[in-house]
Amino acid sequence: MAYIVQKFGGTSVATLDLIKKAALRIKIELEAGHSVVAVVSAMAGATNTLVGYVRDLSTTYDRAEYDAVVSSGEQITAGLLALALQNLGVPARSWLGWQIPIYTSSHHTQAKIERIETRYLLEDLQKGIVAVVAGFQGVSCEGRVTTLGRGGSDTTAVALAAFLGAERCDIFTDVDGVYTADPRYVTSAELLDHIAYKEMLELAAQGAKVLQKESVEFAMRHRVRLRVLSSLSETPGTLVTTESELKPRKKHIRGLAHTLNEVKLTLRGLPQVPSKIETIKSLMESHHINIDMTHQNLSLCGKYMDFSFSILESDAERVVDVLKKSKKQLHFYDLLRDSDVAKISVIGSGLQTELSPSHKLFQTLGAEGIMVQAVTASDIKLTVLISTQDAGRAVSSLHTVYELDIEEK
Amino acid sequence: MAYIVQKFGGTSVATLDLIKKAALRIKIELEAGHSVVAVVSAMAGATNTLVGYVRDLSTTYDRAEYDAVVSSGEQITAGLLALALQNLGVPARSWLGWQIPIYTSSHHTQAKIERIETRYLLEDLQKGIVAVVAGFQGVSCEGRVTTLGRGGSDTTAVALAAFLGAERCDIFTDVDGVYTADPRYVTSAELLDHIAYKEMLELAAQGAKVLQKESVEFAMRHRVRLRVLSSLSETPGTLVTTESELKPRKKHIRGLAHTLNEVKLTLRGLPQVPSKIETIKSLMESHHINIDMTHQNLSLCGKYMDFSFSILESDAERVVDVLKKSKKQLHFYDLLRDSDVAKISVIGSGLQTELSPSHKLFQTLGAEGIMVQAVTASDIKLTVLISTQDAGRAVSSLHTVYELDIEEK
Repeated sequence: MAYIVQKFGGTSVATLDLIKKAALRIKIELEAGHSVVAVVSAMAGATNTLVGYVRDLSTTYDRAEYDAVVSSGEQITAGLLALALQNLGVPARSWLGWQIPIYTSSHHTQAKIERIETRYLLEDLQKGIVAVVAGFQGVSCEGRVTTLGRGGSDTTAVALAAFLGAERCDIFTDVDGVYTADPRYVTSAELLDHIAYKEMLELAAQGAKVLQKESVEFAMRHRVRLRVLSSLSETPGTLVTTESELKPRKKHIRGLAHTLNEVKLTLRGLPQVPSKIETIKSLMESHHINIDMTHQNLSLCGKYMDFSFSILESDAERVVDVLKKSKKQLHFYDLLRDSDVAKISVIGSGLQTELSPSHKLFQTLGAEGIMVQAVTASDIKLTVLISTQDAGRAVSSLHTVYELDIEEK
Repeated sequence: MAYIVQKFGGTSVATLDLIKKAALRIKIELEAGHSVVAVVSAMAGATNTLVGYVRDLSTTYDRAEYDAVVSSGEQITAGLLALALQNLGVPARSWLGWQIPIYTSSHHTQAKIERIETRYLLEDLQKGIVAVVAGFQGVSCEGRVTTLGRGGSDTTAVALAAFLGAERCDIFTDVDGVYTADPRYVTSAELLDHIAYKEMLELAAQGAKVLQKESVEFAMRHRVRLRVLSSLSETPGTLVTTESELKPRKKHIRGLAHTLNEVKLTLRGLPQVPSKIETIKSLMESHHINIDMTHQNLSLCGKYMDFSFSILESDAERVVDVLKKSKKQLHFYDLLRDSDVAKISVIGSGLQTELSPSHKLFQTLGAEGIMVQAVTASDIKLTVLISTQDAGRAVSSLHTVYELDIEEK
């Protein structure tokens, strides 16, 4: 009997009626002879309410308590979906992270799944009982509840699929699959019927919200065949799999991603010594903050420099706090915060073999009069930092220039 | 160092501001040299929302899943109160039922606490860390989340106080303590400064909502000194303790309790055989339903009888379901449901030594023209079933007749 993992995101379980619909989908999969593990997110909006409570109490909150509070949303949905399945005559039970258990690192709010004990789950599955698993959560070796970061239920689903050797992992969401660009910004955005792990990884990392980055990494590492599809329609969605499973393509560029929830911080008047940047990066790392898109302005006299970097808006309060407390240690003169930044990424396997993609990028943005504030490149992506107000125009024109609106035959 | 348990009910943690106030109260107790365990309910209204979800999905829900869903409310408050304490510079952490663990029976939605492992809690307490415990929940030997019934956080608090050998258990609520009658019904109701366990137990069992019945039983069995007081004022509240700790009293009647959330069910046309009532009682017991205030009408011909009993309104759907399914087995003709019933109880230790209390009861209700539908008596209480519309009048007049509005010197 093949195992299938089906993950239902927040918008797919936002109401009791939608939960009943999810139950029906699972029943159909069972009737096709599969054994099903369902993974659920919190009902849409629930997590934001809980995060709001925590943030209202404190900006520098204890992350273990954040996890205790915020993980409750998935617990509720898991119980409700199990009840909805039982109502359809389908045997089902809910599983919390600590009950399976899903062991994670102790890095609260950003924990990594280390091991999943599948024994108890398998006992139930083999009896034909659907396992409804609360996504996003696990348990640390200290016995505390951990969470996997926003969108972490995707990772729960993929990790379960990997540990169970599942045939497929379906990610039900509110969009039809993975697009060449955000369809809310680019009306000519095309739905991709398949995409390679590596490309999907960069799309996710660069702001495509359809899948959590960690979940794609996990899927790539364990060769989990992922299907991203809408719970609101009956379209087949996008298959995320190995490059070798996909047919050869002429076009290298697969999609564009953009994020608007970035903040650029600039430390002005830092002593211009080589070790300084490293000190800042280590400081950020010790607070579990990813810094991205760095940029330095050296002064001519060689004494002071400015250092800019982009971070997630949600980390900004905390980062500003940490930096202010380290003002004496770092010896900077002033701290500037600029929320008016957007990050645009061009993504495709073997970007380096494409005819000068970066040339096209700068040419296109230049023609639109868009100022590039920082740039980074790898063999799979090209990323620029620009002003927020230019984001829509940049994405639209790049989509046309890279011919993403022309379907490949 | 003495341990103090402080329980904060739903109205005492209904908002973030109230949670901060609860944190302040705990801090004061710490500064007085105590070691504190805080027990929290869900934020007022949260549990009702969750119960609503479950009931909307199904009337005959799986009680294990009900527990998984409904226990999440206390989890949220526990995390938030821990954060509020940390904000005041007080070291604190949240504890869920399974983390302590609080072991209970597997009787979901009405589980009983069997054992509390205090080792890990004590390790923290001895380091000066406040333990914030999610009330109402525990874990079964199967590793499922259980809940202790509505108001179960009181029992969590008392059980922790018993297992820790705490000096005192404070129950913070939205009333000033235990009254001679519900002050919303009887304006002359008096606040009791103390009451014996046995009397409190009957008041709780008969509808005084200030404490869960099981919590009083637990306190009585383990001699836990309970204090019921308001989180909104600074009054000392009511002490619930052993009779020997209380000063002798002249009056025997201590208070009146009433419930309006009762339903009277009548099975009409049952075969008039002695074993029939026992069969019905066993059937109800096997579904964990308490039946109360039974009443039989025998027919003159000796062939058929009617059997009435009262149950909690919240059990009514389920009981009617069970009875309808057992119609053939029980051989009744018709099932009547009457929601227009109220239960009024007169409570006091040594009621039998009082000069004919039942005589006074029937005389008073008779003079008010109130029809008594059923009556039961024990040495500590007298209970009658009457029409809902008569409840207010009955309680008021009995309060005067038993001189509960005259303070004892």
